[in-house]
Amino acid sequence: MENTTSGIYIIMGVSGVGKTTVGKLLAEKLDLPFFDGDDYHPDHNIIKMASGKPLNDGDREDWLKSLNILAKEQAQKSGCIIACSALKEKYRTKLEQGLNNPPHWIYLEGSFEVVYKRLKNRKDHYMPPGLLQSQFDTLEIPENALTFNVEHSPKTVIEMILQSLKDLSEFGVLGLGVMGKSLCRNFASMGVRISMYNRHVPGKEENIALNFKKKHQELENTLAFDELHKFVGSLQQPRKILLMVNAGPAVDDVISELIPLVSKNDTIIDGGNSHYEDTSERERKLSEHGISFIGCGVSGGEEGALKGPSIMPGGNYNAYEKVKPFLEKIAARDKKGKACCTYVGRSGSGHFTKMVHNGIEYAEMQLLAELYQILRTKGNNPDEIASILADSENKMQSYLLEITIDILKKKEGDAWLIDKILDKAGNKGTGNWTTIATAKLGTPSTMIASSLFARYISAFKDDRIAVGKMLPVEVSAVKISDDIILEAYQLARIVNHIQGFKLLNEASKSYDWSLNLSETARIWTNGCIIRSTLMEKLVDILRKEEDLIHHSEIISSIKQLKPSLTRVVAKSIESNQPVPCLSEAINYLNAISHSNSPANLIQAQRDYFGAHTYQRIDDEPGRFHHTEW
Amino acid sequence: MENTTSGIYIIMGVSGVGKTTVGKLLAEKLDLPFFDGDDYHPDHNIIKMASGKPLNDGDREDWLKSLNILAKEQAQKSGCIIACSALKEKYRTKLEQGLNNPPHWIYLEGSFEVVYKRLKNRKDHYMPPGLLQSQFDTLEIPENALTFNVEHSPKTVIEMILQSLKDLSEFGVLGLGVMGKSLCRNFASMGVRISMYNRHVPGKEENIALNFKKKHQELENTLAFDELHKFVGSLQQPRKILLMVNAGPAVDDVISELIPLVSKNDTIIDGGNSHYEDTSERERKLSEHGISFIGCGVSGGEEGALKGPSIMPGGNYNAYEKVKPFLEKIAARDKKGKACCTYVGRSGSGHFTKMVHNGIEYAEMQLLAELYQILRTKGNNPDEIASILADSENKMQSYLLEITIDILKKKEGDAWLIDKILDKAGNKGTGNWTTIATAKLGTPSTMIASSLFARYISAFKDDRIAVGKMLPVEVSAVKISDDIILEAYQLARIVNHIQGFKLLNEASKSYDWSLNLSETARIWTNGCIIRSTLMEKLVDILRKEEDLIHHSEIISSIKQLKPSLTRVVAKSIESNQPVPCLSEAINYLNAISHSNSPANLIQAQRDYFGAHTYQRIDDEPGRFHHTEW
Repeated sequence: MENTTSGIYIIMGVSGVGKTTVGKLLAEKLDLPFFDGDDYHPDHNIIKMASGKPLNDGDREDWLKSLNILAKEQAQKSGCIIACSALKEKYRTKLEQGLNNPPHWIYLEGSFEVVYKRLKNRKDHYMPPGLLQSQFDTLEIPENALTFNVEHSPKTVIEMILQSLKDLSEFGVLGLGVMGKSLCRNFASMGVRISMYNRHVPGKEENIALNFKKKHQELENTLAFDELHKFVGSLQQPRKILLMVNAGPAVDDVISELIPLVSKNDTIIDGGNSHYEDTSERERKLSEHGISFIGCGVSGGEEGALKGPSIMPGGNYNAYEKVKPFLEKIAARDKKGKACCTYVGRSGSGHFTKMVHNGIEYAEMQLLAELYQILRTKGNNPDEIASILADSENKMQSYLLEITIDILKKKEGDAWLIDKILDKAGNKGTGNWTTIATAKLGTPSTMIASSLFARYISAFKDDRIAVGKMLPVEVSAVKISDDIILEAYQLARIVNHIQGFKLLNEASKSYDWSLNLSETARIWTNGCIIRSTLMEKLVDILRKEEDLIHHSEIISSIKQLKPSLTRVVAKSIESNQPVPCLSEAINYLNAISHSNSPANLIQAQRDYFGAHTYQRIDDEPGRFHHTEW
Repeated sequence: MENTTSGIYIIMGVSGVGKTTVGKLLAEKLDLPFFDGDDYHPDHNIIKMASGKPLNDGDREDWLKSLNILAKEQAQKSGCIIACSALKEKYRTKLEQGLNNPPHWIYLEGSFEVVYKRLKNRKDHYMPPGLLQSQFDTLEIPENALTFNVEHSPKTVIEMILQSLKDLSEFGVLGLGVMGKSLCRNFASMGVRISMYNRHVPGKEENIALNFKKKHQELENTLAFDELHKFVGSLQQPRKILLMVNAGPAVDDVISELIPLVSKNDTIIDGGNSHYEDTSERERKLSEHGISFIGCGVSGGEEGALKGPSIMPGGNYNAYEKVKPFLEKIAARDKKGKACCTYVGRSGSGHFTKMVHNGIEYAEMQLLAELYQILRTKGNNPDEIASILADSENKMQSYLLEITIDILKKKEGDAWLIDKILDKAGNKGTGNWTTIATAKLGTPSTMIASSLFARYISAFKDDRIAVGKMLPVEVSAVKISDDIILEAYQLARIVNHIQGFKLLNEASKSYDWSLNLSETARIWTNGCIIRSTLMEKLVDILRKEEDLIHHSEIISSIKQLKPSLTRVVAKSIESNQPVPCLSEAINYLNAISHSNSPANLIQAQRDYFGAHTYQRIDDEPGRFHHTEW
């Protein structure tokens, strides 16, 4: 974490509030140099003030410019303390102009009577107390300053300032849904001082943050808010705010609310499942305000978020550098102890990567569903299936396999819970988006698409019941050993990963993202939903070969396992079982390893009816022919 | 066709050009009433003019209003001829305000000297010739008027006017690519007077329209242009312009060029394969200019366009009514002689319907490719496959089957042409869009998606060759009779149509388009690429049942043919042949007729890792449960 006491501190307020005294003391405490703004007045200002005439804005122009240059010089070092009245907002804007990190504003306030009395007692100052009223008239009270009453002794004020600086949170989390809450507990457990915010919706969302804080011991030192400006004000600058709100318009709404509250160089991180094109657009929009934006995939579900998720941040690299220490702190660790968090690439690449992660997850889940169906139809009950799967774990351990075993064993009394669950699968858009991306990019991620469609078909439950009555299907058991069925599943998973990483690779080329596929696999080895021993192997393989199917180890797995996949698909179809995702796996393998496809007929048809032309195998590529059929 | 001589004709020009004389003669010729604008001047204007003072705009206000009311009244009948100076553009705008069809402007022009001489010779007119100079000063020469010199005799002027009206084309075709050209020939053969336009691109596209006109006898009476304003000027108002340019930015470019040239109430028809969302947006944009827009699917390829395509127009119904006679004239005819053209629905529905048509076409083509591959692998040569397919034609005739037979028989010397064609299938976007639409709408058109992906895989030819070397596949023949293979194909086609019409139906519900599925099937029975005897059957079936799979006739076909499809898919997979589209057909049937799916496991997993909740079979629908797994 950065040194929280470095930076520019400007002590402001009218004459006589004790800016110099407090400033010098603070400088001592923070081990920073002190500068008295009054020393930077040009002579003509000093003469004017001494003659009892108030300064006008023109008089102040050169003065503020000198102080701004001073602040920028000092910011290059560790920072400094400057005492300066800075009465108007526009003076303050001039003072902080061009500073990478906005200064800490400390405002010393007191009533006219109190200050007047203090000034009258002063002897060494060139300002006649008669000018004080004009200063109060000029004063625009700052909104974002730490504010202290001058009736406290300077020593007390210093203590309060130090306390306030200490109290500011390092990191903010906005939105306390399932994922937001878990991430907060994760940050807090890792010793990050966080502020937490959840909106207030009367009767629906009340005191969410506060109640959440009370519920968990580890949140003792966090700050909880349901007022946005207070949440923002509680954060150290430059601020880092992680949005954990629903993808879609809610993200834009929150960003619009934040824009007037945050400062230049603050960073907003969107940790939801936003669409990568929206993320690019939001980054562009926020950059117009000088605000950095990171579109950050977070995978791991509730538990991953709590114990260490896999994190996929994308956006401007400099912005990433600022939030990196925080994100790495809460991320899962890979086998070598490295954080499962890496800078993915520019623009929407983080969210794109998360989307593909979810696409792969869709297919992994559908494959397990098909595997379950095949094993169940063979006559196994859920417990028996769980133990078949458990036996296979040494060969192909994965998080989704683990939880499937847990799920299948779960009972309610004598009955298995799985049998009580309605078979209509939901979806939250990322599988849909991946299918659309794969169609747009011209990359056949057929297993992801078929998994999406399988969920859609499952959702047509009434239709299925109605059609099932008209078209009763006799489902029979496949007569194949469990081992072979598991081998088929194993190979289908490999094909799913081949397709998924190919999609990432095509996107990387199309969008010029320079994705590091091996690093992507690495951050997916822990914390996320698709972590598995297969993924661990892919880290090395992808270091050598960006297209998995060209790697010898993958090829030899395919050779070994393909007869099993072929048999399982053929037999499942013969036994009237729908196996769309397994089918796509075997069809993909057969298509991608056929040097000749029947697409020549398609080209002939296109030329026949639409004069779309075709290329010839006995002519150079890129030369197009048309036949008058 | 409408009566081309009806409408409002305004004869304009300065005093003394002979507006009244020409107007009365024209009225006689066209059998329309004549009105002299001067009769509608209020008294104070007549007095002012008689006293030698020119009228100002204020004086003209009431006068123009009276004439505008007159024009609107007469427009309700057959129209009329009005003589009126109408010297300024703003007067003309007032005169045509609120008219559904803009008037024909006829401008009589002459030099000051000529007109002055004519005026001096007049005796019966209350306007002193001294006012003439002020009229010339006021005159803004109209840009869109038929213009005639007053030195001709009135009789000659009338002949020229009549000739000009006759010469105007009824319909314009913009863009002379393969489809545009064929449609022009079709219109001309049907006796529609058309103007044709193709842009001029030096060295690339020169004299396209003119050369095209010269090439075909039937185009003798057409007008050919490569200057857009002349093309637009050659069209009767309200104009009807059919765009046949490449979908995408070219359409927007052409529309931008047209906007300043066309008039309110003109109709632009986009006959290309535009995306339905773009069509909605273009309709909205053009409506701001008062211009109607029809997004019109046209299917049939080059030959269909020439001999009668299937036409799917969507947009505002009133706009459709104006172009209907022209579109119906060139459309194919169904078995009952009715035009294969029907109003599809609002907004982008015409292009959506065409997109789904193309999606169905993708799957039909892929099925034929898979069928060809299976039959070829069995050892048949292309001629033998052609005759197997020809034998099946009485059972399942279709245009795509017909052309496939032609293609397979085509030889170059001793070799079959099909064997010379490179097996990399191209695509122009509509299959992609349909897949995206099916993903967005939550409707599983799995066969269209898999056909798209099969084309993508075919395009990775280098990859296929490389993988094929590492992973050599022994393809074997399926040992199944040709009849059973053809039955499998037949059922897969039915499933493709079930899915395609389901997609239309879901879109109709989502976008509130009230699509008439039976009418859609009807206009697809001829002219288009997917016409077939199956489509003819569906016209009736869809009249009774919007979801095909619920109809008894479809159900009984499925029952009869399903064992064949099952066998063919299972055996093809066992012989290492990729059959993605056939596989999706059988998997869809098995999934949609299973009242229980394994999606309960997916719901359990989603609840396990993401607390997404699930519904229970023993609880009411819509109640969501969460388990602490």
